[in-house]
Amino acid sequence: MPLVRIETWPITAEKKQALITNVTQAVVHAVGCPQQAVEIMLFEVDQANWAQGGVCHADRPPHQPQP
Amino acid sequence: MPLVRIETWPITAEKKQALITNVTQAVVHAVGCPQQAVEIMLFEVDQANWAQGGVCHADRPPHQPQP
Amino acid sequence: MPLVRIETWPITAEKKQALITNVTQAVVHAVGCPQQAVEIMLFEVDQANWAQGGVCHADRPPHQPQP
Amino acid sequence: MPLVRIETWPITAEKKQALITNVTQAVVHAVGCPQQAVEIMLFEVDQANWAQGGVCHADRPPHQPQP
Amino acid sequence: MPLVRIETWPITAEKKQALITNVTQAVVHAVGCPQQAVEIMLFEVDQANWAQGGVCHADRPPHQPQP
Amino acid sequence: MPLVRIETWPITAEKKQALITNVTQAVVHAVGCPQQAVEIMLFEVDQANWAQGGVCHADRPPHQPQP
Repeated sequence: MPLVRIETWPITAEKKQALITNVTQAVVHAVGCPQQAVEIMLFEVDQANWAQGGVCHADRPPHQPQP
Repeated sequence: MPLVRIETWPITAEKKQALITNVTQAVVHAVGCPQQAVEIMLFEVDQANWAQGGVCHADRPPHQPQP
Repeated sequence: MPLVRIETWPITAEKKQALITNVTQAVVHAVGCPQQAVEIMLFEVDQANWAQGGVCHADRPPHQPQP
Repeated sequence: MPLVRIETWPITAEKKQALITNVTQAVVHAVGCPQQAVEIMLFEVDQANWAQGGVCHADRPPHQPQP
Repeated sequence: MPLVRIETWPITAEKKQALITNVTQAVVHAVGCPQQAVEIMLFEVDQANWAQGGVCHADRPPHQPQP
Repeated sequence: MPLVRIETWPITAEKKQALITNVTQAVVHAVGCPQQAVEIMLFEVDQANWAQGGVCHADRPPHQPQP
């Protein structure tokens, strides 16, 4: 029954699928629940709406860690 | 910068650590971010406060999937 | 002061209004608070961002339960 | 697949059950999904951790609306 | 490590920046953490998806408090 | 109608009050809403349930930034 909510910057459909597959397996292995019990929700948060230390990620140089 | 929030029923400290380790790696592999960028928060929700189909998980037979 | 957050797949404006009306009344009747104290927020989550058992709801056959 | 999260002040087990029963039915009637698809999570937030207008609910007179 | 999530109705980019700057400082002064430790996420919720007392904010007269 | 949710490690009642007072004012100044419209919820998350880079904050040396 683990419910996983993942917030990232916008990512590709490919990375979304990888997140869903990998994290589902990771949870199953960690807690020993059935795979069907794992629910995942992805939320893409725009860099203009996510800040650290008072600075928006949208205003940081592009070589910052991704995503 | 992925932020992961995981809600489960109360679990052991061992399973918590496994969740943190496994899910962090799963996210890194899926989106290609630095390991240090992955933040995880665990929330243990009592079965008396979690219901499906109008029935509390605390009121279900004990052989239900765990956690 | 109950605060209710409802996540569904995208739904019609009609169903949104029904959700707001019905759930507000349900909460008032359950906890005995004034109607004005009930706050509801609806979040429509795309089926491509919601998965169970490692499979996206967007990738399931269309006869799956709605929403 | 509606997921409902309800935050209230601490309430009795009786009111919790009423919330779960009533809100599940309200959601089913509003969106036409199977009852089994409705998931509800209750979170009891202490009045010392919930404020409006800069004033904690724990610091308000006791005749304030409940819960 | 305070993580702040702010839900408002849609606001201007100018107000977003003010929120990020002001709230970061407010948190630093209140808890004495380094500025870099404060993370803020903004979520703009449409008035059609936010209700109080069973009435959508989108359906209220325009002289209601903003945002 | 801004709704602010703040997650920190457990903090003193004094810091909680400062958070509520300071953040309420910061939001009022940033978006120009009435003070009464600002709602704040505090969530204290145990360091054992909060990890970064795969390491629990509870397992870090005590000279780490607080909270």
